[in-house]
Amino acid sequence: MWNLPPSDTVLHVLSLVALAAQAMTAALAAGRRSMDWVGVCLLGCVTALGGGTIRDVLLGHYPLAWVQNPSYLALTAVAAFATILIARAVHRLSIAFLVLDAIGLVVFTMAGCDVARQLNESLPIVIVSGMITGCAGGVLRDILCNDIPLLFRAELYASVSIVTGLFYASAFGLKLNDEAWTALTFAVGLSFRLLAIRYKWEMPKFVFDDERR
Amino acid sequence: MWNLPPSDTVLHVLSLVALAAQAMTAALAAGRRSMDWVGVCLLGCVTALGGGTIRDVLLGHYPLAWVQNPSYLALTAVAAFATILIARAVHRLSIAFLVLDAIGLVVFTMAGCDVARQLNESLPIVIVSGMITGCAGGVLRDILCNDIPLLFRAELYASVSIVTGLFYASAFGLKLNDEAWTALTFAVGLSFRLLAIRYKWEMPKFVFDDERR
Amino acid sequence: MWNLPPSDTVLHVLSLVALAAQAMTAALAAGRRSMDWVGVCLLGCVTALGGGTIRDVLLGHYPLAWVQNPSYLALTAVAAFATILIARAVHRLSIAFLVLDAIGLVVFTMAGCDVARQLNESLPIVIVSGMITGCAGGVLRDILCNDIPLLFRAELYASVSIVTGLFYASAFGLKLNDEAWTALTFAVGLSFRLLAIRYKWEMPKFVFDDERR
Repeated sequence: MWNLPPSDTVLHVLSLVALAAQAMTAALAAGRRSMDWVGVCLLGCVTALGGGTIRDVLLGHYPLAWVQNPSYLALTAVAAFATILIARAVHRLSIAFLVLDAIGLVVFTMAGCDVARQLNESLPIVIVSGMITGCAGGVLRDILCNDIPLLFRAELYASVSIVTGLFYASAFGLKLNDEAWTALTFAVGLSFRLLAIRYKWEMPKFVFDDERR
Repeated sequence: MWNLPPSDTVLHVLSLVALAAQAMTAALAAGRRSMDWVGVCLLGCVTALGGGTIRDVLLGHYPLAWVQNPSYLALTAVAAFATILIARAVHRLSIAFLVLDAIGLVVFTMAGCDVARQLNESLPIVIVSGMITGCAGGVLRDILCNDIPLLFRAELYASVSIVTGLFYASAFGLKLNDEAWTALTFAVGLSFRLLAIRYKWEMPKFVFDDERR
Repeated sequence: MWNLPPSDTVLHVLSLVALAAQAMTAALAAGRRSMDWVGVCLLGCVTALGGGTIRDVLLGHYPLAWVQNPSYLALTAVAAFATILIARAVHRLSIAFLVLDAIGLVVFTMAGCDVARQLNESLPIVIVSGMITGCAGGVLRDILCNDIPLLFRAELYASVSIVTGLFYASAFGLKLNDEAWTALTFAVGLSFRLLAIRYKWEMPKFVFDDERR
């Protein structure tokens, strides 16, 4: 996440907005379980920053982004806390938050690919690194909320991340114009995710029942 | 945790007692879910040692305390196992265990702050390091027991850890007498936690209901 | 896991088979919860590779096996996916899978002991490293399926891993013939596990009820 070069100002701003948005939707999940104010802030931080943290721990990529730059903790905790005050507005704007979350998914995936690429990892690990960065925070949120992770059950979420990562990484060997390719990947990933939401595209489910045979 | 200089004998002994106490209360939680003897010991170890472990993994602070000093594993596993034999006594002494747990919260928080300080982390990370050390073991326990973490739902627990860390760390720049400040922090943190228990102080909850609008 | 010297061809092949088998039984667990195809593959990877991953993160042993050799990801994801197509056959062969899982438990335990030994860890950590490698993947699977980990509740599973590790490690100081000892450990561990399944040996449970006093 957010490990983008500072020159990529647009992407950097987008990723900050997406961090805040993920913390805010996590705060709503916390509110559905009547967590207290501290729990709301913790869940916001863990959800928004967890994906990048798991990626960095698995790749041995230290120091973690939020350890080096604790303002990410402040941003996500404040965003989660603010949600307590404006919960109804956040809920009413749920479509806006779906879009922001989709932006986060795509931007974090690209940033995760970049981190693995800088570490000279192989192509499959670059894709996996992007997927973990984009998706693992939501898995932590669902574990802490005592749910089966949504990621495993529904919607094209991990799939969007994988496709985005594949598309993004396919240019690594081609010496293409980086900025144009980043913008194109962003457009492709975001469109895919938004279309999947709009038309309720879903992965087929694997339903296995011990009894029925 | 427990990474205190050996000279701080009092603190060291207190942290060992608190480790055992946390393993014992985790063992009771395991018994409520009818875990087997191995599960009881594992849950005791994970609960008591998990906070320091997560902190060290996040900060890249290797080797882990219990890897370097496996006697911590033995202490917590034996304490958890002993709880099976004396469960009624442990339950009857629940007030004593609340006090021991509060001591652990404060001592582990200070030790976590010390670790981050030795790694030259920034002040926010020092506080977060203390909070993770003091609180994350209980979160792991609740995840393994398939509960929403108590930390996110009730009581001043994380808050006590944050206040203790802030108070403790506020002296880092001041060249105060370390031992006196440690004792004072211990008294402040422990009093805060015990008062919170005694008078049932709670964080306000954030209750969000999708239906009601 | 799988960090065996290439010369140990038999063990290496066994560990690959066991990886696939663990991914396939995890896929059945995913099917019982109606996860989608991506969730099935993710749960298969996490279950089969999670134990070795947690061990390596705790011991600071980088790079992780699957980062260095992403074919493990492909093997486990494909095995999990294939399970969707042949679920009934997998279920009908459940005894064969119990045997394969037992082989995995023993082989992964020995491999985990080897890793810790190469890092010059102390004997208790060698045993713990073996146990984490053999058992932690199943704990992750149960957490993601929103269950209390089976490991904590039933059967001789962790116990088999501990006994296998103790037996295996007892030869480290003796300069015994390595290959013979490995084969002997394999036989002892596998027999123990299969006997435990056949005769339904169980650890005693610790049942604690707050009410009844």
